[in-house]
Amino acid sequence: MAAILNHFTSYTIRPLLPLNKLKPLSSSTKTIQVTTTYSNPTNWSTINADVDARLKQALPIRDPLDVHQPMHDLVFSAPKTLAPALCTAACELVGGERKDGVDVASALKLMLAASYTHQYLPNLLQRPNSPSFPHNIELLTGDGIYPLGFELLASSDGVGGDADRALRVILEVARAMGGQGLVEAQYMKVKWAKGELDGDYALMRMCERGEGSVYSCAAACGAIVGGACEEDVEKLRRYGFYAGLIHGLLNGVGREGDVEEVKRLRSLALKELEGFDAEKVGAISSLVDADATRCVQ
Amino acid sequence: MAAILNHFTSYTIRPLLPLNKLKPLSSSTKTIQVTTTYSNPTNWSTINADVDARLKQALPIRDPLDVHQPMHDLVFSAPKTLAPALCTAACELVGGERKDGVDVASALKLMLAASYTHQYLPNLLQRPNSPSFPHNIELLTGDGIYPLGFELLASSDGVGGDADRALRVILEVARAMGGQGLVEAQYMKVKWAKGELDGDYALMRMCERGEGSVYSCAAACGAIVGGACEEDVEKLRRYGFYAGLIHGLLNGVGREGDVEEVKRLRSLALKELEGFDAEKVGAISSLVDADATRCVQ
Repeated sequence: MAAILNHFTSYTIRPLLPLNKLKPLSSSTKTIQVTTTYSNPTNWSTINADVDARLKQALPIRDPLDVHQPMHDLVFSAPKTLAPALCTAACELVGGERKDGVDVASALKLMLAASYTHQYLPNLLQRPNSPSFPHNIELLTGDGIYPLGFELLASSDGVGGDADRALRVILEVARAMGGQGLVEAQYMKVKWAKGELDGDYALMRMCERGEGSVYSCAAACGAIVGGACEEDVEKLRRYGFYAGLIHGLLNGVGREGDVEEVKRLRSLALKELEGFDAEKVGAISSLVDADATRCVQ
Repeated sequence: MAAILNHFTSYTIRPLLPLNKLKPLSSSTKTIQVTTTYSNPTNWSTINADVDARLKQALPIRDPLDVHQPMHDLVFSAPKTLAPALCTAACELVGGERKDGVDVASALKLMLAASYTHQYLPNLLQRPNSPSFPHNIELLTGDGIYPLGFELLASSDGVGGDADRALRVILEVARAMGGQGLVEAQYMKVKWAKGELDGDYALMRMCERGEGSVYSCAAACGAIVGGACEEDVEKLRRYGFYAGLIHGLLNGVGREGDVEEVKRLRSLALKELEGFDAEKVGAISSLVDADATRCVQ
């Protein structure tokens, strides 16, 4: 049996979708200490490095430079999120190849970067001297990135060469990113920022449609591409959903009083992992463990 | 043999991607008289009506209204383009079911509407009183529409239930809409509008990457979903490419001196249709015929 190793990895994560109406847990940049306990040398950092390497392949700085340079720069400067890594970890948990998980994770990372760019564009437009590219270039860059994400998912060397799985993953991703997923959360955040929306119900719904949709999609897609049975796909989808809510509450909209809710969600999340290979489960459960989700300055 | 009928249909078409640096053939709104000669009652109008009916199904005005009302409104107020109808006509030409062509055409129409919305957003942002929705809502609406387009293509009742064909269509659409297709054309148009780009080479490249990419993708996807052999897919792809160039030159960037080029492209386009069913070919060839492409005020 492989020795159990402890890895401590530090990420500097800016909130993916911060809200300016709530009292944040910390300043705009937080350090999250992620504690991972593995029976193999895999950890979130190495998964993220694999995803970035795949994206550098998919996004070479090629002609026309006007188009590809900003696409490249915006993707690699977008705030980090653990959703793509969760996708890869879910794929490996169910016995899939890491390469397949990384392919889907790369597409997810692309689309989340495009979404982030557009989310903040109206703010950028109010700051005439700030952007490194003209605003319409940032807008078009997002538009170029979305199709590239779907191209990665549909290409013949993606998703393990299995057309049915690839289509299912495309459908999952399209729904999570769309008008009943991340885009709905972004609409709500626009209203929230204007003071047109408030309260716990709206807050939870934003987390559900935003981080909840994205993380549950990531975990389900990892399971699908890894060849999991339906039951395991649904378990991992629910695990991702709870993990997304926790990360949404703590990273984006954390405020006093959420501690009990986070504990409750963590317990629900871990329950979904019962029955999976005990030696492998540590690699994915660390996403919601006490250290991983404890924000420290 | 069915009697040959002549249908005259009038469209009011605003240029999909106008350029303000070139002398237009007419004012910003033109009427294109499309003359179609058919051996069946199909024509561009009825195809467009079928596409719109499919889209009304796919885009019901449902909860949350904040998200779906603007998506619905922007899709149906975007300028008309004949690319989705070309997709359906290509599908029928190769013996496919109209329903399958209409499904793909609906996804194309959605994505072209999102692209149009974003293309003109920087201009809208400079006119504080003009938009019917806040700018960030228009931005997010585009973001909600792209995934919905891919969702339509990937859903189990789309693309004739054939996973391999569906994936191929998704790949074609993703490439045509992306950084080496329509988005590149839009980048060039931003530079052109600023006077940083000029000349015939740039003009043709804009048409190639813009309307050329979109129309060739539309025709190829129609052929793929209709079950055409590879040779016919490529013939229809080239036909769509020439038709797109013609429409790009005449509708978007038409100027004196293009008449000879349009004649040459028309002849190349019609050559690609040789060998197809003579009775059916009129339904698609009318896209490039003298009347269809003659802009009249």
